[in-house]
Order: sequence, then C-alpha cells, then structure tokens
Amino acid sequence: MNDKPADHLVLFMPSGKRGRFPTGTAVLDAARSLGVYVESVCGGRATCGRCQIEVQEGHFAKHKIVSAKDHISPVGPKEERYAKVRTIPEGRRLSCSALILGDLVIDVPQDTVVNAQVIRKAATDRLIERNPAVQLCYVEVDEPDMHKPLGDLDRLKLMLEKDWGWENILVAQHLLPDVQKTLRKGNWGVTAAIHRDIEGSRPNLIALWPGLHNEAYGIACDIGSTTIAMHLVSLLSGRVIATSGTSNPQIRFGEDLMSRVSYVMMNPDGREAMTRAVRQAINELTEKVCAEAGISADDILDAVFVANPIMHHLFLGIDPTELGQAPFALAVSGEVHTWSREIDLAINHGARVYVLPCIAGHVGADAAGATLSEGPHRQDRMMLLVDVGTNAEIVLGNATRVVAASSPTGPAFEGAEISCGQRAAPGAIERVRIDPATLEPRFKVIGVEPWSDEPGFAEAASQVGITGICGSAIIEVVAEMYLSGVISADGVVDGVMADRSPRILANGRTFSYLLHEGAQKITVTQNDVRAIQLAKAALYAGIKLLMEKLGLDHVDTIRFAGAFGSFIDPKYAMVLGLIPDCALDEVKAVGNAAGTGALMCLLNRDHRREIEETVKRIEKIETALEPNFQQLFIDAMALPNKVDAFPRLSEVVTLPVPKVLADGDGAGRRRRRERG
Amino acid sequence: MNDKPADHLVLFMPSGKRGRFPTGTAVLDAARSLGVYVESVCGGRATCGRCQIEVQEGHFAKHKIVSAKDHISPVGPKEERYAKVRTIPEGRRLSCSALILGDLVIDVPQDTVVNAQVIRKAATDRLIERNPAVQLCYVEVDEPDMHKPLGDLDRLKLMLEKDWGWENILVAQHLLPDVQKTLRKGNWGVTAAIHRDIEGSRPNLIALWPGLHNEAYGIACDIGSTTIAMHLVSLLSGRVIATSGTSNPQIRFGEDLMSRVSYVMMNPDGREAMTRAVRQAINELTEKVCAEAGISADDILDAVFVANPIMHHLFLGIDPTELGQAPFALAVSGEVHTWSREIDLAINHGARVYVLPCIAGHVGADAAGATLSEGPHRQDRMMLLVDVGTNAEIVLGNATRVVAASSPTGPAFEGAEISCGQRAAPGAIERVRIDPATLEPRFKVIGVEPWSDEPGFAEAASQVGITGICGSAIIEVVAEMYLSGVISADGVVDGVMADRSPRILANGRTFSYLLHEGAQKITVTQNDVRAIQLAKAALYAGIKLLMEKLGLDHVDTIRFAGAFGSFIDPKYAMVLGLIPDCALDEVKAVGNAAGTGALMCLLNRDHRREIEETVKRIEKIETALEPNFQQLFIDAMALPNKVDAFPRLSEVVTLPVPKVLADGDGAGRRRRRERG
Repeated sequence: MNDKPADHLVLFMPSGKRGRFPTGTAVLDAARSLGVYVESVCGGRATCGRCQIEVQEGHFAKHKIVSAKDHISPVGPKEERYAKVRTIPEGRRLSCSALILGDLVIDVPQDTVVNAQVIRKAATDRLIERNPAVQLCYVEVDEPDMHKPLGDLDRLKLMLEKDWGWENILVAQHLLPDVQKTLRKGNWGVTAAIHRDIEGSRPNLIALWPGLHNEAYGIACDIGSTTIAMHLVSLLSGRVIATSGTSNPQIRFGEDLMSRVSYVMMNPDGREAMTRAVRQAINELTEKVCAEAGISADDILDAVFVANPIMHHLFLGIDPTELGQAPFALAVSGEVHTWSREIDLAINHGARVYVLPCIAGHVGADAAGATLSEGPHRQDRMMLLVDVGTNAEIVLGNATRVVAASSPTGPAFEGAEISCGQRAAPGAIERVRIDPATLEPRFKVIGVEPWSDEPGFAEAASQVGITGICGSAIIEVVAEMYLSGVISADGVVDGVMADRSPRILANGRTFSYLLHEGAQKITVTQNDVRAIQLAKAALYAGIKLLMEKLGLDHVDTIRFAGAFGSFIDPKYAMVLGLIPDCALDEVKAVGNAAGTGALMCLLNRDHRREIEETVKRIEKIETALEPNFQQLFIDAMALPNKVDAFPRLSEVVTLPVPKVLADGDGAGRRRRRERG
Repeated sequence: MNDKPADHLVLFMPSGKRGRFPTGTAVLDAARSLGVYVESVCGGRATCGRCQIEVQEGHFAKHKIVSAKDHISPVGPKEERYAKVRTIPEGRRLSCSALILGDLVIDVPQDTVVNAQVIRKAATDRLIERNPAVQLCYVEVDEPDMHKPLGDLDRLKLMLEKDWGWENILVAQHLLPDVQKTLRKGNWGVTAAIHRDIEGSRPNLIALWPGLHNEAYGIACDIGSTTIAMHLVSLLSGRVIATSGTSNPQIRFGEDLMSRVSYVMMNPDGREAMTRAVRQAINELTEKVCAEAGISADDILDAVFVANPIMHHLFLGIDPTELGQAPFALAVSGEVHTWSREIDLAINHGARVYVLPCIAGHVGADAAGATLSEGPHRQDRMMLLVDVGTNAEIVLGNATRVVAASSPTGPAFEGAEISCGQRAAPGAIERVRIDPATLEPRFKVIGVEPWSDEPGFAEAASQVGITGICGSAIIEVVAEMYLSGVISADGVVDGVMADRSPRILANGRTFSYLLHEGAQKITVTQNDVRAIQLAKAALYAGIKLLMEKLGLDHVDTIRFAGAFGSFIDPKYAMVLGLIPDCALDEVKAVGNAAGTGALMCLLNRDHRREIEETVKRIEKIETALEPNFQQLFIDAMALPNKVDAFPRLSEVVTLPVPKVLADGDGAGRRRRRERG
C-alpha cells in the first residue's frame, strides 16, 4: 500500500461527478461530499437499505480509472445483518458500509427512477436523477437530561442538524402535540420527514414516526377537463407503483371548460361545489392508487399538480370567472406552494403541495408540464408541442427561444359538433381507409378485432354495435375523403362523385359520404367536414403564428401531447394540415406529457426551478390580438393548406392534384379567382 | 447655494444614524437608505400619514450640524391635501413629501412607541424602536394585459418587489380565492400585509385589502396560571390601545399547575378540554380588548405569547404530563412560530403567532419575557429577577453570564396553606404594623380607606368585613412579628410574650398571634409562620444557589416580577430573608414584566432574536440536583438567615438581637448547639 497514493479517484455514474478520497471513506460520504444524490433514510446505520450502489469493474481509459470490486471493502457485519433481513440484489452494496480502498467507478442505480414514460426520453440523452423535495431522516435523539433542559423537539432538531445538516428547521404546528409520544414510542429513535424545496429556504419538519420509517410516497396528478390522471411514486426509490385515472366529476357542471365557467357565474355556490367536486375526485383517485399499491395515504408526503387554467383555479378554490372573458386574467400564474390540509387533500396532514406555473390565460400548468417533459427549451432543434383539446395549447421553440399560444379549436376534434361523432368507446369507428378507385371504405371499430372487410367482423360487430365515429377516426375519414377525391382542397364534398359511387349522398345543397349503413346510418356530412376544417385551421393558424414569430418556415420535430395525439395517425394529421410539414418519423405522440412533467417535478425539485424559469422566458402570444391570425386561419381552411407546401409529406403520401369546388363559399371562390 | 456642498448631512434621532444626501432627497428615502425604521403604508403617496418626523432646530456642535426648519422643503400640495383630511401635529412633517435642502437633525417620534410600563426602562437608557414583523404596504398593480399574461397575484408580487423590495414572497393559501376580487374592488390599489420575522427568510403575504388599509394591530399576551393578561397594540404607531386581563378558566381543572397536570393524566380528554378552555379564554379576552379599542379582531395580524411551561404546552395543544415528573422534559423549549388558524385564534386568518422560548422545565416563556423586559443580560450590574408563584422563577446575571432556576416555594406566598389566608379581595388585610412595645397591631383592609387605628375604620370595615390575610400581608405580619420580638430568628412564636400581651395565645404546644378579633378571629399560627419560612427558604436557597454558581456574595439590583411583587414591601421581603441583602431602593416591583417582554417582541422582532440568543446562553440550574441546596435551604429557614448578613438592610431597619427559642425543632436545637 505504501507506493499507492494516499487517496483514490472515485467517479460516480450517471452524474459523472468525481473526486479523490482517502482510504476508508464510506462511499455514501464520498457521494454526499460531491453532491451526488444517494438516498439514505437510516443515516449510515445499514438498516434502511436505500443507499445501494454498484461497482463498475474494468479499465476506464477515458477517466484514467481502473475500477475493481476489491477496491471497495468486503461485506462487513452490518451489511451482512441487513442482507439476512432483506435481500440485496447481486452486485449491489450498501454505500454507507462500503469503504473506498482504491480507484472506483460507482454506479448509482437509477433503474427504478425512470418509469416507462420517462424512459422514452432517454432518447434525448437525458436521465432523470432523483432529488425529491421530501427526505426521510432517521435520528437517535438524546434522552432528556435535567442538567440540559432543552425540549424534546429541540434535541430532535439538534440531531437533525448534527446527523443530516438541516439547519433552522421549521416545525409543522400539528406535530407539536405528539412529538413526545413519538420519541418515547421509538425509544428515542425516530424518522423525520424533511421538506425543502427551494435551495436556501428553511427546511420544514412535516412528519415524524417512531423508529425507522422506510417509505415515503408522492403523487403526481394531471387534472384534465374530462380526465384526472395520477401517478403514485415511491420518493425513496423513484418507482412509479401505481397509475390510474378517473373522469372529472365536473363534467356534470358542463362538458367543456367554458360551460363550467358559466356554471360558476350562474350559481352562487357554483365555485365551492366545483372545488369540492374536483378535490373529492382527487381524494378518491388517491384512495384508488393507494389501494392498488397497498399503501396508506398517510405515507404520501408530497403532491404535484398540473391542470389547465380553469381546473387549476377551481382546484385551488379560485373563481375562474375572469378566465371566461378578455383579458383572461389568471388569479395566479406562478407556481403555488401549499400544504395538503389547506386544500383538503386526504393525504398526510403535513404533506406539501406544489402546482406548476401556468404559461398564460389559456395555456395552463398542464402545458408547462408537457413543456418540461418534452423539453423544447433543452434542445437546439425546433420543437413543436401541441396539446389538442377544446383549446389547443401550442408551444414552439428550442434552447434559444420558446413561444406559446392557445388556439380555439373547439370540440370538433373530440367528436362533438360532428353529426355521427361520439366518444372513444366500444362501437365507435376508430380507423378508416377509402379505396380511391371504388370509394368503398374499410374501417375498424373499438371493441372489434377484425377490420370491416375481414372475416368475422359482422359477428363481432353485432356484439357491440357500430354507433358512431370517434375523434381520431374523424381525422382519418376526412383525410381519406380528401386523398380519394371525395372532397376538394377547399373541403367541398364533390357531388359529381355521386355518379361514381352510391356512397356520395345528396343532402339538400351539399353532399355526404356514407361510411356505414347498419342499424344506424353513419355519414360524414359537409358540415362535419367544415367543423373539422374550422378546428384544424384554428390549430394550424396558431402554430403558423408562432412559426412566424420565430421566423421559421418549418419545424424539426413535432410532439402531440394528450389522449387525442395518442390515437391519431400523424400522417393523416398532416394530410389534413393540422400540423405543418415535417418528416413523419419526427411526429410523435407522447401521451400524458403534462402528467410526466408533474412526475418529474415530484422526483426532482430541480425540475421545478427549470419549469419556473422556462415559463418566465416563454413569450406568450395572444392569437386574438394578432392582426395576421385571421389570414393564416383562412389559408389553413384549405386541405392541407392554401399557401404552405408539404414537401416531406409528399415524399410518402401522394397528395391529390388540387381540385377546387364551390359550395356557396363566396369568399373562397373570390380569393381563388384573384389568385388565378 | 453654489458655495454649499452638493449634499447635506442628516442625522436621525434617536437612532443616531447619519448620512449625506443630495438636495431634494425625500427624508423617508434617506431614512430607509440608512436602515432607520420609519413607518409608511402608502409608499410615499402622502395618504397614510404614518411617516411623520420632526426637524430639530439648532446648532448641534457635537454633530457639527446646524439644523433649521428651512433646511427642509416647504409643505407641498400632497402634504396640504393630507392635512386637510387629517390633522398633522404642530411641527410634524410627512417624511415622504419633505425634501432635504440642507443639514438636518431629524427626530423620528417614538413617543407613541413606549407605553407606561416600557417608559420605566428609559432609566436604563434604552429606547425601544419599532421594527414589527408585520408591515402594511400599499401598491398600485398594473391591470391585466393580454400581451403579458402574468396572473393578478403575480403582478401584485412584482409591484411589492418593485415598490417595497419584497423578494420571493410566499402567499398564504387562503388569500388565493379572493385576490382577484380584492384587486378589482380596490380599482387595482391594494394594501398587502407582509410578515417577515427572521432576516433572510422569505416574506409572507398574509392579508390583503382593497385600497389603502391604514391600521394593523397585534396582541401581546401572558398566559398565567391564574390570570391571562393582554395588550392590544397598533403595529403602525406602537401605541398600546387596550390592556386587559381575565382569570384563567383552567382554574376549574385545578388551582395550581400540578393539579392541572393530574387532570390531564386522569381524564382521557383532559388535554383537549384544557387546550380548548385556554384558547377560548384568549379569544374572549381578544374580543374584550377589541371592543374596548373599537377595532375589529380581523385587523390583528400578529400575536406574541408568553406562559409558564405548563400553560405554554396546553396552549399549544401539547400534553404537559412529562412536565409533572422528572426529568421534567419540555416537548418544545425553543421559540414557536405558527399561524393563528393552526391554534384556533379568532383573529385574522393569516395572522402569525410567535411564542417566546422556555428557559427550562419550570422556567417558562414567561420568565424569558421578564428577562427580556428587565434585561439582566444587557447590563454590567448583577441583577436578580424573581417571579414568585407556586414555583418561583429566578434569573440572575449580567451581560457576561446569566443563570436561572426555579424553586418550589409552594402556594404559601399566595395565601394558601395559611390558616387565615385568602386572596387579595375586599375584606382581606393587606398591610400590618405591630408596635414593638405594646405588641398591638394596626392594619389596613382592602376596600377600606383608613388604617385600623384611624377614625372611620370601624364603620368602613363593617361594610366589607375583615375576612382574612392576603399574600402580601402575610409577609408583613410575619416580618413585623419578627421585628417586634413576637417570633424568634428561628421562627418560633415566643410563649413568654403571652405574659406581656393578650395577643399571644397558647395553642396546644405552640402559640399564635391574634391580629384581629371580630366576627372571625384572625390569627397567625406557628404553622403559618412555618409555612412562610418554608416558602421563603426555598426561594432564598434557589437565589443563593445561583449566587454561588456566579461566585457572588451580593447582588446589585433586584426585580420582583408578577402581581405578588407589586404588593409586597421590599423592606419586609428582606427582613424575612426572601431575597438577599441589597440597597432597598434597588429592589423594585416591575409588574407583569413577562407581558412587557411579549410586547417588546411584538413591536420589534430584533427582541425575538435577542431573547432566543439569551435563552440559549442562560445556564439552567436544576435545584433538585444540587447537593448544596439542602444546606442552603436549612440556613434560609432562619430569619432573615442563619449565616448570611444583611448589612444594607441593617442601615435602615433595626433587626432584633438574635433570640432563639425552641418549639420542639430538635434539628434546629442540635445545630444551634453545635455552632454555639
């Protein structure tokens, strides 16, 4: 040993942080001193098993480290004792007991941190390290001593400072009555939950248990207009242990957000009733995820929420009336820090609540969550992030500059205002293809395995019925009608085609396309096409406005957040001109990105600072105030667009030769003539 | 003006802070930049009238300043407008509107700050400057703008930062629902209450009113075992606007503290019932002081409490059982910061609560308050501070070192355990003199103007009756009995005297002194004398123990805190040997010093830090653990003391030549012989 240096080079992965440490330093202490987050509840007593690490063996030339298993001390009695009670996975060691004896590359396992949804983001070379706002700290408190009459709580605070470095702790009032009993029940060994969100602010003691308490959970929740989705996560391992959803009970106060605002305005107790309803739904959902995971809601110590502005306000007990009228003033746009008991959440009485900031009056904390999840601000490529609902929330940008807007798409994309539209439920048509030669359709029905032209379809379909067209199929059928020439670039159902196919039905002055004739006649009418055109034109005009703000003629990559995006085919979305031209493999549905953003904020408080700073930087565009919006909207009424080309789409889809028909749209005709 | 320097020397009194400022600087801005606390709610709009100052005219040679009224700008239109609506006292100016034109000595009036009790401390050359934890800040918030979609609250926070320098404000959750209405009601002008106690911690927005809200109040409250006392104070002027007291309803759970602890131990809901009772009493008292002052309890934004340890715990909802048994562990000894709503106080929902730290298991936050008020730690002379109750709380020290202890005096000083003892109420004897020649007494009765030997006494006394002896008179009558030779230095009633006076009555083996014979016979028995001896010996032994810890043979000055001290004559207290020898004019009763300490913490948060630091420095002595205590106690049974001399007392009182009698106290006799 004499010819070796007195200290050793240790590299921690995946953070890449490194330092030199003398022989005999505990790996946990080394990690701590470098600011590498390694969980530990018991504070180095080898009883919680949370501080596991793995030695990477080999010659790491780039780092000039030869790392080997025998560069760490062998398993000692404390680790052996732990391994007898609980299993330690092969190759893992407890970093509180493993001492540094030589150069090392140490892997801090993050496998449990990244859930299925988050893994996707590994593609962007980003790995979510855990740094939750709540930490469990086991301490052994001195017994009372008449010579040193410090209070029990004060000696506990002293030990939390000595063992864990927490200074100037604030104690939640509700803990005072029980602190003495808890200390005595634990025979002076207790586990404290410390909450500290913002660096430099005072830590809060929020919960206290006798003895070693080795679990702490958090919930990440997205309060959508129709659905509330929740992840239940272990704050100690980072593992998502349950995910569930429930429909928003506020639907009974109005299907869309504006009708809920009206309800508040019309009913004296409307706001309270709606606040109560959403909080109760969240509490029931919490109960559900807890039951699923077999844990107690009392062990939930942190909660992060995202929501659209109106749900955000109702959840926080704020009257959303101002959001229903210009200038659409949010009561609060910044992040909200509060306590579970202040908003009646049935989780631990001392649990903290964090609500992400809203971006603007119609671009909510949900859009902020999706932004955090997809990270346009973290990359150089220009990303378009779209969350389609009654209002589309649109974020566009890269590391240099990000802009955001909302656009009033209306409910057509959700199947409302469509003659045969319905929710995505068994019996709804969800996929459609139209043969350009025969104009005959084939389609798929939710709850029925075969396509309509495959064997067994009729039998299976008779079980569920064929009842309507869901939102995603509306996009497909209109796009297929366009590709097959049933409708023109102006969106007119071509009556001339009625000669070619009995599926083109006259309907007064306009025509319809007959998709299915069964118990119910399922048609796509001229009005349906118009409704989709209006919705997609609003969305596209909003996007285009943001592109113009940034001086862009194309975007590099597109993300569809939300349920709608998960079901539509990017190709058809582009054929209809919902979104601008882009390589098709760069258009991705990312599911509940807002919920993922909430999850990130729950697991790592640095992400809270990240989204707070990002939201401040985002430039908000109010589409209604932009003089150009109207023209962009009119151009976007055409399929895919009157003025914008779709060269990348054209490489994979043969777009029809423009054919323009009139259905009495005088403005359309005039402009067409002017342009010649 | 050309030959004058470009800027002017301005000195602020009483702080003594000074600086140079260019012509035209507002006096308020100058004060702010020097850290001189001048109140202002309206932020320089000349509408609140809180920022008044006075120019001191003259040649201040020491400061090299010639100050004159025309060194300040004349009254302008804004000040004139204010003076029309409200009066400004002669000579006063609004510092926000008065501009510096020359050298100035500016007086920041503190006259309203120091109330009658606090004025007394001016003797120690200390002036209480105001620096409350709550500040009112009027701001005019930008109206919502669709181009900048910051929330209403966020724009309010921005303005509080811009106009008042408050950064990173935390907002109390309960304000969120009403922030929009308040802003609109005030036409975008609102007054925010900001609480910031500890320097460097984040400011809290705790209340919000439309328009200019020009009053904020606080309560300072001492929760005693028998009495709860409260000051209501304007946080803006510092003026005490109401002071009141109520009896502690917990008396029904037990007269003394230990019987209340027993009640908690014996009754399953005892703790909750007692917590409810004390909080309710505080709420009723708050209602009373508010009614007296004609203000709304909703305008109370800060509250400071002191209490003995058991009341401290019960008030905070903590089971005090541990305080009833060794090692007398406090649940919490440090200061407590909480919110009014957490402890059910019926004041503003966002009001803050501060509870002073406890010194030890039997030396409570009340003793800390008294220490802060009297300030042994602020001076070089050695101060003894005594608060006599069932337990005496004793603090001794100076700026170098402070020690504290409690001593179990029992309830004798309060008139309990005394055969004819009673509370201080009409009919109680409160003053006694005994003629050494005749042994005849003269006395004064509460509710009766003349002394018993003066004309009109019999008539007046017949109205109220003569019913017993109150605590203060017990001290006097025993002291007078000693001075007149009725009892010996050992405390034995001298039976030989029965030959000289019919007032000495045989009573089995011992003798009594007949103070009054009316409807009731009022006597002082041998047992009564013994009870007083035991109580005073406990107090004196505790004091002596602390003196020994500091190596003192005398103290420079003595303060009696609490009601008891206000009624007893220091001379008699010293004759009996309750307190050590000291110049009589250095023994002072200071009334409810604990309450004054609470008031100081309410008016100036620096005093909170002062008492927190002081309590940490105080060395706590547990008398029960000191081997020497027993001997000190035995020595202190003698009058005034077996071993300690009282030279300063002897200069003004002729102490009897020691005369020792036996009453069967074998131990006393033996030791007497050993020493003799």
